[in-house]
Amino acid sequence: MLNIKITGSGYYTPPTIETATQVASKIGKTEDWIISRTGVYQRRISDIDVDQMAAIACKEAIGNSSPPDLIINASGVPKQTIPDTSVFIQKELGYSGIPSFSIHSTCLSFLTAFHTASSLIESKEYKKILIVSSDRGSIGRNFSEPESAALLGDAAAAIIIEPSNNSCLLHYKMETFPEGALFTQVKGGGTYRHPDNPKTLDQDHYFTMAGPNVYKMARKKVYNMISKSLSKNNLNVKDIDLVIPHQASGTAIKAYSKFGGFDESKVINIIGDYGNCVSASIPLALCIAIKENKLQRGKLAIMIGTGAGLSVASAIIKF
Amino acid sequence: MLNIKITGSGYYTPPTIETATQVASKIGKTEDWIISRTGVYQRRISDIDVDQMAAIACKEAIGNSSPPDLIINASGVPKQTIPDTSVFIQKELGYSGIPSFSIHSTCLSFLTAFHTASSLIESKEYKKILIVSSDRGSIGRNFSEPESAALLGDAAAAIIIEPSNNSCLLHYKMETFPEGALFTQVKGGGTYRHPDNPKTLDQDHYFTMAGPNVYKMARKKVYNMISKSLSKNNLNVKDIDLVIPHQASGTAIKAYSKFGGFDESKVINIIGDYGNCVSASIPLALCIAIKENKLQRGKLAIMIGTGAGLSVASAIIKF
Repeated sequence: MLNIKITGSGYYTPPTIETATQVASKIGKTEDWIISRTGVYQRRISDIDVDQMAAIACKEAIGNSSPPDLIINASGVPKQTIPDTSVFIQKELGYSGIPSFSIHSTCLSFLTAFHTASSLIESKEYKKILIVSSDRGSIGRNFSEPESAALLGDAAAAIIIEPSNNSCLLHYKMETFPEGALFTQVKGGGTYRHPDNPKTLDQDHYFTMAGPNVYKMARKKVYNMISKSLSKNNLNVKDIDLVIPHQASGTAIKAYSKFGGFDESKVINIIGDYGNCVSASIPLALCIAIKENKLQRGKLAIMIGTGAGLSVASAIIKF
Repeated sequence: MLNIKITGSGYYTPPTIETATQVASKIGKTEDWIISRTGVYQRRISDIDVDQMAAIACKEAIGNSSPPDLIINASGVPKQTIPDTSVFIQKELGYSGIPSFSIHSTCLSFLTAFHTASSLIESKEYKKILIVSSDRGSIGRNFSEPESAALLGDAAAAIIIEPSNNSCLLHYKMETFPEGALFTQVKGGGTYRHPDNPKTLDQDHYFTMAGPNVYKMARKKVYNMISKSLSKNNLNVKDIDLVIPHQASGTAIKAYSKFGGFDESKVINIIGDYGNCVSASIPLALCIAIKENKLQRGKLAIMIGTGAGLSVASAIIKF
């Protein structure tokens, strides 16, 4: 148990809406095909970059309070290779001198950073940590791969955590299974498919996902993780007040009630409005739940999801 | 103070050596120019990718001991955008199920990860953490920018940390100054200079550094950080047994004795043989010091350096 409290939250969803009808013409599929396969009715498309998106979310999370003493960027795709995106976010926020770095585990970056930051608070290394996830998946859409192209949307979300005596991160667990490493990829952007490499193809700079393979591998592993995490804390499904899942796909979210045993009304489902926002999906779902008063102080929530890797992670919090 | 001990270490320096003479012809400068400007007599060039380089270093660090319960990749440039490189390193190591993620603060990634991992050990979240830095800067050399192209070299280095009663991370401090964000860059690889963007240029995929600007901004900030960190722990320069600096440039390393007041014999200087290995420089210097028995149990060492950001960080350890 790590004794922390979420003391601020904020998010940014770009104003430009792209509907399933608009995407349909780009991928050669119908609106119905998109909605039945992905569950995404619309997504937001950003015309500002990830650092600016992040800064808007951060400003809302910080409000009128004092600056954080650590900034963690927890995103799936960076603004550029070097420096890491946290630097550009701090620049947008108008700060200087605050230690900043990035944590990356694709769609689970936020959970990894949340756990890490909670540990840094628990061990008294920092007192007020800003965690922000900002992804602009629309840039990496491959319109020749209809299912993944129809899934992605842009968003940013941020939280502040501080020491606490009554709220906590009750339990955290992560597992990474490299046998699923090739299921979800952007092959470019690093040393493997550098533009100078004659093997590098245009599509290497786009997002690719073997959705059915991910779902098949993930469902059982997610189910097992939920069961173990709950029983380890002497909890059962009914004790959890809110499920905040990664918005991987409509099917993946429905699985939490269909197979996971959680009441459908307890599962935050925003994929229809925003799509899969990569790392920003979990914190966006969390921040919307807080804003809409679906998560009150003292309540138990589980944040859970899968990410490229294939990784699975869950965090049970007492909000 | 975080109660951890470095219980394993290992490194990989590729067998292929490229001398100053060989680089000279590529950048249109002389061997003497290279050596006087950068201090790099030779560097290693890898023909295997960052994940394989990392795995060799990790295997040496792990030896015959049990697998770690967390793997942190702490590198400057990834293998590919998604998944993060830790997944590929775990794959190369033949493990499955171990939580894995990446921490990125360019040349300071290792220090950031070391501090974070120490906190995760201190708060009892993990018991044995593998941290590995692996960078293949040679891929990103821009031969039209002679000074930075002559600096970079390839290497990987890894350590294991575990709980301890007699060794520790005595003090850690990091500061990030975004006013230096544009001094050291690889602009490509993310959303800002995506290959689809008509503004993207070939050179955006290469490393660029305004060396004199970095040095000018960094020298005072590094000096101040050393002074404050030592005085906060009631230590003076003479109490430090070993200085393990980032191998930024020959000039930067000499500054630790010339301006920092450390005896030159205490400052690990490997830039002549290996160049600036980005994130791998600090752990490589550490691992070589351990292997050559320059750092014994109970001794005090300071790991220190600057990174793109511009960031400065220092970690005082009781080894």
